[in-house]
Amino acid sequence: MLGNFKYYNPTKLYFGKDAMDGLGIELSRYGKNVLLVYGGGSIKENGIYDRVVTALKQHGKNIFEDGGVMPNPTIEKLREGCERARKAQADFILAVGGGSVCDYAKALSVSVHCGEDAWQKYFIDFDEPTCEIVPVGCVLTMVGTGSEMNGGSVITNHQQKLKIGHVFGDNVFPKFSILNPEFTYSVPRYQMISGIYDIMSHILEQYFSGRDDNTSDYLMEGLLRSLIHSAEIAVKDPRDYEARSNIMWTATWALNTLVAKGKTTDWMVHMLGQAVAAHTDATHGMTLAAVSMAYYRYVLHYGLPKFARYAVNVWGVSPEGKTEEETALEGLDAMERWMKRIGLVMNLSELGANREMLDGIVQSTVIMTGGYKILDAQEIYRILEASL
Amino acid sequence: MLGNFKYYNPTKLYFGKDAMDGLGIELSRYGKNVLLVYGGGSIKENGIYDRVVTALKQHGKNIFEDGGVMPNPTIEKLREGCERARKAQADFILAVGGGSVCDYAKALSVSVHCGEDAWQKYFIDFDEPTCEIVPVGCVLTMVGTGSEMNGGSVITNHQQKLKIGHVFGDNVFPKFSILNPEFTYSVPRYQMISGIYDIMSHILEQYFSGRDDNTSDYLMEGLLRSLIHSAEIAVKDPRDYEARSNIMWTATWALNTLVAKGKTTDWMVHMLGQAVAAHTDATHGMTLAAVSMAYYRYVLHYGLPKFARYAVNVWGVSPEGKTEEETALEGLDAMERWMKRIGLVMNLSELGANREMLDGIVQSTVIMTGGYKILDAQEIYRILEASL
Repeated sequence: MLGNFKYYNPTKLYFGKDAMDGLGIELSRYGKNVLLVYGGGSIKENGIYDRVVTALKQHGKNIFEDGGVMPNPTIEKLREGCERARKAQADFILAVGGGSVCDYAKALSVSVHCGEDAWQKYFIDFDEPTCEIVPVGCVLTMVGTGSEMNGGSVITNHQQKLKIGHVFGDNVFPKFSILNPEFTYSVPRYQMISGIYDIMSHILEQYFSGRDDNTSDYLMEGLLRSLIHSAEIAVKDPRDYEARSNIMWTATWALNTLVAKGKTTDWMVHMLGQAVAAHTDATHGMTLAAVSMAYYRYVLHYGLPKFARYAVNVWGVSPEGKTEEETALEGLDAMERWMKRIGLVMNLSELGANREMLDGIVQSTVIMTGGYKILDAQEIYRILEASL
Repeated sequence: MLGNFKYYNPTKLYFGKDAMDGLGIELSRYGKNVLLVYGGGSIKENGIYDRVVTALKQHGKNIFEDGGVMPNPTIEKLREGCERARKAQADFILAVGGGSVCDYAKALSVSVHCGEDAWQKYFIDFDEPTCEIVPVGCVLTMVGTGSEMNGGSVITNHQQKLKIGHVFGDNVFPKFSILNPEFTYSVPRYQMISGIYDIMSHILEQYFSGRDDNTSDYLMEGLLRSLIHSAEIAVKDPRDYEARSNIMWTATWALNTLVAKGKTTDWMVHMLGQAVAAHTDATHGMTLAAVSMAYYRYVLHYGLPKFARYAVNVWGVSPEGKTEEETALEGLDAMERWMKRIGLVMNLSELGANREMLDGIVQSTVIMTGGYKILDAQEIYRILEASL
């Protein structure tokens, strides 16, 4: 761990089948006016909405609603939410949903009292909040983004064709998150699998970088093994509580800042996936899956020792009698077989992309510099082409 | 992760060669009167004392001293410290030292204003603090206990021949800890190695329990691999920054509550080691090392699948063509070879124990119930005998 860093994560987590008990304990710390933020309304079908509303009423809260948060929350929605929050004189924002709803709630928390246009301030100028921040809590119903224990918030501006993430400081982290694995049972299979690969990719983006020796890499190998194991169980039986709970916990720790400590990180797969999404509107995790194999098989030659280590420590490949390259490639083959087994989308064509779009996607791709190879436009094109 | 649990860790960590920069940032949040708590005075020889005092003066603090905290802090010392803290009207307690100094500072923080006898309240009745708690910060100079990021505090009462630990809640956790791996360079070799095994044992005590599938176990396998790897480097070159930094980070995460989440734990090796220490005054980590192999070789038969998993995932043993027991035993053999390689004390005789003491040590041993086998007195005797 060669660098200097600070670690501080003030989010309180309540985990398990009884996690909702924590909601009451936490709500009592905040004011009466609660803005209840949620998405398309599936929480009204699966009973979670009723449970949350009951808890809010039991604690004497005034409930103000802000539903309809979309999978990629827009700046227009955010501006509308600010209006609602101000009118409600919201003391607290309770996000009930997945990563998008949590992301939106955090953006809202720093925008309600900011007095400037939130888009310009946070997503163009990357300013830090200087106004009062409305505290946020989360009841998580979908797993993958890790938004429940970090400061990340991604907002989309369709007019400007931009989808931008701001990683806010610890004062914007959710004050608490309620993690009940059973709340994720009703997530459709495609979304569950997509979420699993989002987690996998979060870990790999932080793992495949640097040549130093670092405890964080060992922690990530542990998280990866747990995820790989539990994913296979969850796709066979989505109601396997043990598997779903392990996946939920892994998702939180994959992106709550811990495993990046003391090391460099990559994030190129996310940049490729986000560029694909901008042109196809495909599901986030699937865009990552579709470009991963081509990307990793290409950069493997620039970070061979780490890819060989990955093969041995994560996929159980025996390195005996093999070159480092053979070992590394065997690891990626094992990863590819696993991805197919759990039902991930393995090519861009299936997500609606085609050869004619490639130049546009290349242009939309932000180039990161922390991985084993800094890509140029031609290399990005070749990787996307190999992913078609 | 089958259980319900809460995770909340409010300790802020500053890590790295520049970690001391964090001290100034944090000190500015607290009042003027700082009680500076430290141990035998080695920090005056290695320059850390001067650096801390300079920082305190720069931030306009009034410094009140409470040195001489012993390796096993006593209740008498604690009572004396309360006097000092009250006289100083301490706004903040800054602990500079290893686990004992941090432990002592936390006990002090809940005792200064408690108005009752701290021993009776916290270490006999296990009450929770109801009085004002003086905030604590740590500058860590020795690695192993994990006290820098948890609520644990162990106090010794020689009169009553008792050494008791209280695990306080998150309101007693240090507000911040300064973790500069270079500050641990001057720790004597024997103490460094002892600390390494204390870390190892913290992880194993949480790992060797339960039959469920749990992300925490995977995280521990990662921590163990990192520790085993870095320990071998550190004993060859104690000034290898990378190795010492990995060991320091591993120690913190081995016992800051994370890796026990959602699972049961054992802690029997610590009970055996503490009983040995009560009769020999031997160094904590070495007492754990001396009893570990006999304990694990005995309980292995009751938790075979986990011991076989340990062999494969932590020690790289190939299970091919072997019974589960053979695999498990090979793992313990590999562990024993590593323990000898890094210079741990492998038997009780070397720590001053002898056959005549065994009955007394058995009587002093608290029996835990979370491991793979609940021991009776005869079994404890046999394990201690095998450890002589």
